[in-house]
Amino acid sequence: MILDKVNSPEDLKRLSLEELLLLAEEIRSEIIRVTAQNGGHLASSLGAVELVLALHRVFDSPRDRILFDVGHQAYAHKLVTGRKDRFHTLRKEGGISGFTKVSESPHDAITAGHASTSLANALGMVLARDLMGEDYHVVAVIGDGALTGGMALAALNKIGELQKRMLIVLNDNEMSISENVGALNKYFKELQIRKWVQDAEKLGKNILERISPQLFGLVDRAKEAAKLLLHQENPFYAWGIRYVGPVDGHDLKGLVHILEHLKALDGPTLLHVVTKKGKGYKVAEADPIYWHGPPGFDPKKPEKVSKGYTWSQAFGDAVTELAHMEPRLFVLTPAMREGSGLVRYSLEHPERYLDVGICEDVAVTTAAGLALRGMKPIVAIYSTFLQRAYDQVIHDVAIENLPVVFAIDRAGIVGADGATHHGVFDIAYLRTVPNLQIAAPKDALELRAMLKKALEVGGPVAIRYPRDNVERAPEGVWPEIAWGKWEVLKEGTEAYILAFGKTLKYALEAAGDDPRVGVVNARFLKPLDREMLRALSRYKLLTVEDHQRMGGFGSAVLEALNEMGLKPEVQVLGLPDRFFEHGAIPSLHRQAGIDAEGIRKALAAMGVAVVHERA
Amino acid sequence: MILDKVNSPEDLKRLSLEELLLLAEEIRSEIIRVTAQNGGHLASSLGAVELVLALHRVFDSPRDRILFDVGHQAYAHKLVTGRKDRFHTLRKEGGISGFTKVSESPHDAITAGHASTSLANALGMVLARDLMGEDYHVVAVIGDGALTGGMALAALNKIGELQKRMLIVLNDNEMSISENVGALNKYFKELQIRKWVQDAEKLGKNILERISPQLFGLVDRAKEAAKLLLHQENPFYAWGIRYVGPVDGHDLKGLVHILEHLKALDGPTLLHVVTKKGKGYKVAEADPIYWHGPPGFDPKKPEKVSKGYTWSQAFGDAVTELAHMEPRLFVLTPAMREGSGLVRYSLEHPERYLDVGICEDVAVTTAAGLALRGMKPIVAIYSTFLQRAYDQVIHDVAIENLPVVFAIDRAGIVGADGATHHGVFDIAYLRTVPNLQIAAPKDALELRAMLKKALEVGGPVAIRYPRDNVERAPEGVWPEIAWGKWEVLKEGTEAYILAFGKTLKYALEAAGDDPRVGVVNARFLKPLDREMLRALSRYKLLTVEDHQRMGGFGSAVLEALNEMGLKPEVQVLGLPDRFFEHGAIPSLHRQAGIDAEGIRKALAAMGVAVVHERA
Repeated sequence: MILDKVNSPEDLKRLSLEELLLLAEEIRSEIIRVTAQNGGHLASSLGAVELVLALHRVFDSPRDRILFDVGHQAYAHKLVTGRKDRFHTLRKEGGISGFTKVSESPHDAITAGHASTSLANALGMVLARDLMGEDYHVVAVIGDGALTGGMALAALNKIGELQKRMLIVLNDNEMSISENVGALNKYFKELQIRKWVQDAEKLGKNILERISPQLFGLVDRAKEAAKLLLHQENPFYAWGIRYVGPVDGHDLKGLVHILEHLKALDGPTLLHVVTKKGKGYKVAEADPIYWHGPPGFDPKKPEKVSKGYTWSQAFGDAVTELAHMEPRLFVLTPAMREGSGLVRYSLEHPERYLDVGICEDVAVTTAAGLALRGMKPIVAIYSTFLQRAYDQVIHDVAIENLPVVFAIDRAGIVGADGATHHGVFDIAYLRTVPNLQIAAPKDALELRAMLKKALEVGGPVAIRYPRDNVERAPEGVWPEIAWGKWEVLKEGTEAYILAFGKTLKYALEAAGDDPRVGVVNARFLKPLDREMLRALSRYKLLTVEDHQRMGGFGSAVLEALNEMGLKPEVQVLGLPDRFFEHGAIPSLHRQAGIDAEGIRKALAAMGVAVVHERA
Repeated sequence: MILDKVNSPEDLKRLSLEELLLLAEEIRSEIIRVTAQNGGHLASSLGAVELVLALHRVFDSPRDRILFDVGHQAYAHKLVTGRKDRFHTLRKEGGISGFTKVSESPHDAITAGHASTSLANALGMVLARDLMGEDYHVVAVIGDGALTGGMALAALNKIGELQKRMLIVLNDNEMSISENVGALNKYFKELQIRKWVQDAEKLGKNILERISPQLFGLVDRAKEAAKLLLHQENPFYAWGIRYVGPVDGHDLKGLVHILEHLKALDGPTLLHVVTKKGKGYKVAEADPIYWHGPPGFDPKKPEKVSKGYTWSQAFGDAVTELAHMEPRLFVLTPAMREGSGLVRYSLEHPERYLDVGICEDVAVTTAAGLALRGMKPIVAIYSTFLQRAYDQVIHDVAIENLPVVFAIDRAGIVGADGATHHGVFDIAYLRTVPNLQIAAPKDALELRAMLKKALEVGGPVAIRYPRDNVERAPEGVWPEIAWGKWEVLKEGTEAYILAFGKTLKYALEAAGDDPRVGVVNARFLKPLDREMLRALSRYKLLTVEDHQRMGGFGSAVLEALNEMGLKPEVQVLGLPDRFFEHGAIPSLHRQAGIDAEGIRKALAAMGVAVVHERA
């Protein structure tokens, strides 16, 4: 195995180009083998193998900084930067991260997980480099999906102005997680047909002569391109960026060749590289959406597996049905159709469905525009990504009390995706916003009831639910829900557990059949059920939530009790004030002390030691 | 006066074009008269008078929706949409808003205040329109500064893809509040030289014939443009947007003419209009940066007035000095050089200063990139605008505990700018984030101490200070500060007021010389000074802050007390759970009950009625 000899990017420089090609295949096998075991971002990483090898061949990491936007295409990078021996621990607790992570390796230039951050990071780096009189290279690798995110475009605008030396590699596979959307994407496609090279004034014949013509298709195409360059009509001219491409992202030799040349250029250059998502693995090439981030599979006989019925699907089924009843309903997603359970909805209601692309802020404000004109928009969004539209929630939705529903998926600890993806801040950042109502259902049926009611009550409503499976609710059933009212699931004589959302199941498990311990489904956080809270204040109270302890549900309970002048004994369980890495959800919950065992321990500390058989 | 006869946009249609020209001058006078009295967004509004009149002449508001991005160019719009009799109340408590506001008038299509939101809103509106089978026009007016904001660019990408009928008016005055930055801005300038019209395939000779040549400068220029159109090399082609322009934004007749034609077109069209900020008022034309948003002035003898020494200036002076001592210091602003007190800094340290433009997310992540490469970046940002970079604070800065300092200006109630601008959520959304430290100084000297120390302690630090004047601190003095330690300013025997930030002065005023009431400068919110809090817990406690009560400083105190098992009587003063409109800061503080009087009332309710002379 060639991979056995590669302990750092330095070792790549000693390989022949033929060996590099063999290495690419070995790396592909290893990526398939490990993601088959652990699950992971398979298709993106397979698509970027040659690109990663070419970059590490030409540039000198860690001296040169190679930034992988989002970071889920970087498995090959991990394998050639000293982590091949730990690669089997990918996404496992205590193992290496599924994304690049600064604290994991000196070769990981940025910590990523959310899209479109690489260009602003790169801008900061080249500024620092030049101020400190250093001269390393900064290379940002960004997908066509991530490039159409607002902050990437805005960063491009500043990069083009400042003209610092930087290489941007546009890894164009025509995909986000789903098909990419947006006008620019169409345009990138068009560039692939037109095949031109730009900025002839500076590079001119020079680069056209040096770069082998086959990279640009037919020679007369290249000539045609050269003509165009005499004008300044090229795609990135408006941005002040030198555009080179498109080139074949699986032609390793060609990539090495062109990167060697581009390395010598000053100013910002964008190299447009065309790759195929899932490259080299037939099933992934054929269905890159499923194989974007599959759970484990049998590498010899790769088949789609059902992940069971998830909260996302429960949401998707509910809104699909609701949309048949409510003609004003409209669902928006920021590039998360599959993840948000919206495939069925998008097929049954294509005209009332919108994937805006990777721009959460646009999703929320487009929803505001819809609401202003009489529609009832639902923004389906992960908790961690709603952070990217926080101002829009306040400024565009809440101030005018617009009826926008936020279906907040992946709330709480999300598991293998780790610190960048845990949705553990939403309660804190949302409950401080006036007009916003916040709820969390205990099951799929309650989710249906909440969604239906949310469309009726007016004003913005956030409904949060976890990354988890849930029992399927019957179609056509729409129970009424008492808005703002908690639900006592079990009476107690000494203490009550107030659980918000997912932790309710832990609460029930912890309480068991102990008659002293009651359990409340505290399903509405805002408005808070003060009436019931007052009634329960003669008991010991324990709040539990899958969210930071600081500023969360427990904090809201403390505030309400204090305002009512009530002083029961209260224990607040939630995540401690630190970031959690990737790991299995139950394990992380246990570490945080919010699972059944943690609740029992807290109860015991309050003098209510529950003794019972474990479920 | 013609304005006297204009009670709605309908009335504009009955005026001759000559009368419209006279009306434009009347409106200018009225805008100058009222902003001279009340302060306000003078220069932008003066620059858009003809554009506003032309739009209301050609389109039918409120049936047609005219969206003003940011909304601070819309005074003429307010004057011709039934608000001229209330225009003198502009920005005054109970008066009309300085921005467009949905709840203020059916003619205000969106509630604005923050930039770059109009395009996503417009997208939502055209989707709603077409779904509901309606056929009104949607027109978004967006400045060149706001158009370079990420969410505007991302929205453009989707608008170009969907090809819904919509008019985007690019109001290009080459300015944000300061000079505009970014490559696109340079490009817009270039377009003004090149003068072309695009999308000839559809519009072709048709529009070139119909639109009078003088709009486009020389006739041969127009011909040249037509040639270019046969190719697809025009600036907005990549976005899928039909581009028309540039045209003179002060040629009212020409604007009416071209808008009439553009009205008939399907799909998205961008009309590039060139205007002069401050148009028609010499001082404002000459210095549009100062006259962007002046406080009151004498309209006959307009002169710059000093607003006194502000917290912003105190910050600016401190970092200017610090940068002489700390070569790694770097300051970033998202288009707020003047507002953030950075003029001096930008002159003394131009190489370590960056205005990224109106893209707060880019500012924060560029800071992250700088920090990753050894610099010590400070992001100078208003509290309300940091909401736009919340995810970047978490994802790009806090997770890796990077040493980025957030200098959070305009924290708390900001006064005349109103609901969109009050910085009253930052404590809640920041304190839930691990690794982040949060402080608020009592005066300019403490601000200096905190800034210096923040560069030393490592990790992200947020320092919040209000929109207010402050006593100037001596240069060269850098007191040491005990990080994380509160300061007792006055001892008490019965109750302690714990004040965070600006409300400290109210606390001191409320306590007067009553020996029963102590006052604490609770200057660190995170880490919270638990030691002192424990010591004070044998007294009655009253917390006060210029921030939402939900999730704020008081909430943090309740959490800490509960965790320590302490149960003193606590009253939490802060803003109630609603949005505050514009008004004088002291008045809004009084309404919220967080001023000296409110504190005294709360103390009295706790049984500690302070009787003393008012200061």
